[in-house]
Amino acid sequence: MNPSTVTATVVTPSPTSVEEVRTIIDGAAASADRWAATTAQDRGQILEQVADALDSYSDYLIAIAAQETHLTELRLRGELKRTTFQLRLFAGVLSEGSYLDVRIDHADPDWPMGAPRPDLRRILHPLGPVVVFAASNFPFAFSVAGGDTASALAAGCPVVLKAHSGHPRLSAATGRIVNQALHTAGAPEGLFTVIFGTESGKVALNDPRIKAGSFTGSIPGGRALFDIANSRPEPIPFFGELGSVNPTFVTRAAAQARGVQIAGDFVASFTMSAGQFCTKPGILFVPEDSIIPEVLGSTSLPAPAALLNNRIQQGYLDVLSELRAHRDVSILAQGADSLADPPSPTILKTSISALLADPHSLFRECFGPTALVVTYDDEGALLDVARGLDGQLTATVHGEGHEPLLPELVRLLAQKAGRLLWNQWPTGVSVTYAQQHGGPYPATTNSGSTSVGTAAITRFLRPVAYQNFPVALLPSALTDENPVRIPRRVDGHLVTHP
Amino acid sequence: MNPSTVTATVVTPSPTSVEEVRTIIDGAAASADRWAATTAQDRGQILEQVADALDSYSDYLIAIAAQETHLTELRLRGELKRTTFQLRLFAGVLSEGSYLDVRIDHADPDWPMGAPRPDLRRILHPLGPVVVFAASNFPFAFSVAGGDTASALAAGCPVVLKAHSGHPRLSAATGRIVNQALHTAGAPEGLFTVIFGTESGKVALNDPRIKAGSFTGSIPGGRALFDIANSRPEPIPFFGELGSVNPTFVTRAAAQARGVQIAGDFVASFTMSAGQFCTKPGILFVPEDSIIPEVLGSTSLPAPAALLNNRIQQGYLDVLSELRAHRDVSILAQGADSLADPPSPTILKTSISALLADPHSLFRECFGPTALVVTYDDEGALLDVARGLDGQLTATVHGEGHEPLLPELVRLLAQKAGRLLWNQWPTGVSVTYAQQHGGPYPATTNSGSTSVGTAAITRFLRPVAYQNFPVALLPSALTDENPVRIPRRVDGHLVTHP
Repeated sequence: MNPSTVTATVVTPSPTSVEEVRTIIDGAAASADRWAATTAQDRGQILEQVADALDSYSDYLIAIAAQETHLTELRLRGELKRTTFQLRLFAGVLSEGSYLDVRIDHADPDWPMGAPRPDLRRILHPLGPVVVFAASNFPFAFSVAGGDTASALAAGCPVVLKAHSGHPRLSAATGRIVNQALHTAGAPEGLFTVIFGTESGKVALNDPRIKAGSFTGSIPGGRALFDIANSRPEPIPFFGELGSVNPTFVTRAAAQARGVQIAGDFVASFTMSAGQFCTKPGILFVPEDSIIPEVLGSTSLPAPAALLNNRIQQGYLDVLSELRAHRDVSILAQGADSLADPPSPTILKTSISALLADPHSLFRECFGPTALVVTYDDEGALLDVARGLDGQLTATVHGEGHEPLLPELVRLLAQKAGRLLWNQWPTGVSVTYAQQHGGPYPATTNSGSTSVGTAAITRFLRPVAYQNFPVALLPSALTDENPVRIPRRVDGHLVTHP
Repeated sequence: MNPSTVTATVVTPSPTSVEEVRTIIDGAAASADRWAATTAQDRGQILEQVADALDSYSDYLIAIAAQETHLTELRLRGELKRTTFQLRLFAGVLSEGSYLDVRIDHADPDWPMGAPRPDLRRILHPLGPVVVFAASNFPFAFSVAGGDTASALAAGCPVVLKAHSGHPRLSAATGRIVNQALHTAGAPEGLFTVIFGTESGKVALNDPRIKAGSFTGSIPGGRALFDIANSRPEPIPFFGELGSVNPTFVTRAAAQARGVQIAGDFVASFTMSAGQFCTKPGILFVPEDSIIPEVLGSTSLPAPAALLNNRIQQGYLDVLSELRAHRDVSILAQGADSLADPPSPTILKTSISALLADPHSLFRECFGPTALVVTYDDEGALLDVARGLDGQLTATVHGEGHEPLLPELVRLLAQKAGRLLWNQWPTGVSVTYAQQHGGPYPATTNSGSTSVGTAAITRFLRPVAYQNFPVALLPSALTDENPVRIPRRVDGHLVTHP
């Protein structure tokens, strides 16, 4: 590719009109059959070519991203690397083939159900065109070429990508590179398009040809889109990642053993990228009589950093002001500029009894460089907190391992969060086979799904069973020959080495 | 068990009051932790004991079911056998362990994402208490001890079972037997309760302690409950199976080769259980110039049979009357009593051009012993029909295998239905590993799920990842030792023989 052809796009795009959105969905729908019929191996190779193209434009993309998001170059380089790694990881998922969850039951006249079992063969098929709403805080990894785009394309679904208003030029540039790579690799035209403007996203989500939606953002925004998806004449699955406080519990024993270290790591985690992570540890529970409040009170906090954009900064300052004004909240540490533009980090403090008395005001996400330290005397009160939690993306425990309350605390937290951490920090969501990024509402609108890791591909698939079909009319993955050589469940038994 | 203790319950139960529903959910919620902590092997054994108890009361239950539903003893015996088979099949699923979808990623400092991979271990946990709305037409298999109850209990979830108004005494009797068996087997009290009355179901679905709902019934009823589930402050997954026409396509070649056989099998399938199956082949596409219309026109239809209850019979007669009154519909065959009480079967006829011109009036479910034969001249018009289909539970093709349109027809139908059949009939849904009972809306509200077969267990589970946990605090299925010896994905590789 020639960089000059891409550079030409770097003007702020105008909102996509309703007519344009319809035309774009025409194209997505027209590409769906050919993309679904493209072999998994070929789809994987195409995703790898997209990754290569993005890597080859990294300097260019990161320069635009830094201008638009105020994130550091170091952070943005890491995020882009993660994004292209993710595309390549899905190529591996496609090649391995377990994601199809193939099940083959041969006919059995003696099936003990009381009636003969027919020949039944089940596979997952792509849902069709989907709309993905990009996030503000991950201009690469949860945006144009991010996780949902990767998993939807991998699944065999065309993608209409609603760009986030916080980084429109980067979205246009990334979209152009992705589309050039798809075109060069031979993917069908219309497979992937970036659209702009709030209204355009709603139009797309309401279009009957769109078969699923995904979103990363705020609770009100995500709930509004969730409601649209469910109130359509034909409701569609909607995978919204909305909000999370990510409570972190430090036991007395851990505070005694490693209080200074925990305090330092906590500050590093909650201030990372100016606190603009959905997994920011927003609330830290520590013993009142431990060294941690004292260490945090005298810690030197990072310098002020501009937030992603003005709207996010204003939202942050509003929530911070409300928290500061709460009668049970004091300021444990802050820079001189904690309410300025740009704001410096703030550590607030309250007690566990105050939190339990007014969770609505105190147990809330404050998107930006603020965290709330909650002190306790009775460690058992942590169980009361865990029982009352809303759904979370993550919940973290720092402990020594021998504390009597740990089994019960972990058991309760497993009911409330999608990922539990032990003696680590929730920021930095690794892209792996076992990752789970998604928890009970309001953390997500669909706790059965993940937006990170290889399991994410299943959100854009649905099962179809073929009964009594001749080989010539079966998808090849369902034939006895298994030419694609993937793991399958045959007559109830998992067969991994075909 | 002593039959007399059960016989005493066989009076029509009164509606469960709001206060009673709350108390019942108190009990379900109180039982949830203990049931979730019960080992999979123990849960499986308990399900087997429930199956044994139901089998031991089969004569008793079938007598009540026959009184309340008008279904034949033969049909009811088969259905009960299927129901207890299903409970035992889930015991096998629990023992095998793949349903937990365990994934283990060991820490990897060189993970190519660009940051070290932490130790991550993912497993599926039960959602918590669920409410299951029983069906009218399967008093055993989709009711009190039916598929959703089996899969929810297997998953580790307490069940509040909303009985169908069509068979209240059977529901009470079945519930008593299930509860006695659960009690005897040592299951926690409160794990399973049957409730009665429309309002009680809505109260349960709105209760914040209920974490999922499932339903089998009509489109309006299912959509209303789906809307309740999604408009809760905390929305919950709702698995509704609503309606399906189950189109069946007979190619010209098949009609020529086997027209008489197809006609006879069609009548047997659509009149089975007086046409009261969600998988009834409601519309049959046949060549106008084939023998099939003629054979059907002179076929001797089964005798009149009472429908499940008065409300269903009235609904059936209303839809049938509207179809008969349509200007493009003629009567191909009917008994003398086709609009009487009880009604005899009816075969209506129209043309494919009329159907394509007015699908809203003609392409609809008529729940009872009526089917619509649609004649075509141009086989290619079948593709137009397939393209325009709403979501279906099933779609069926009768063909010879060499017809040029088959690949395209099957491909289109795979986009519209959860199960495709070749030269068989959709009634009779086998309970197997590969079964898929669920398709795009309005067939179901969640096409990613199935209500029949072993995959059904996943609807009541959600993933949780444990990061960096010590062995002592991990679920045993996640430890390296793998003491329960289940298949797992370890560092990306499926390990089936631990």
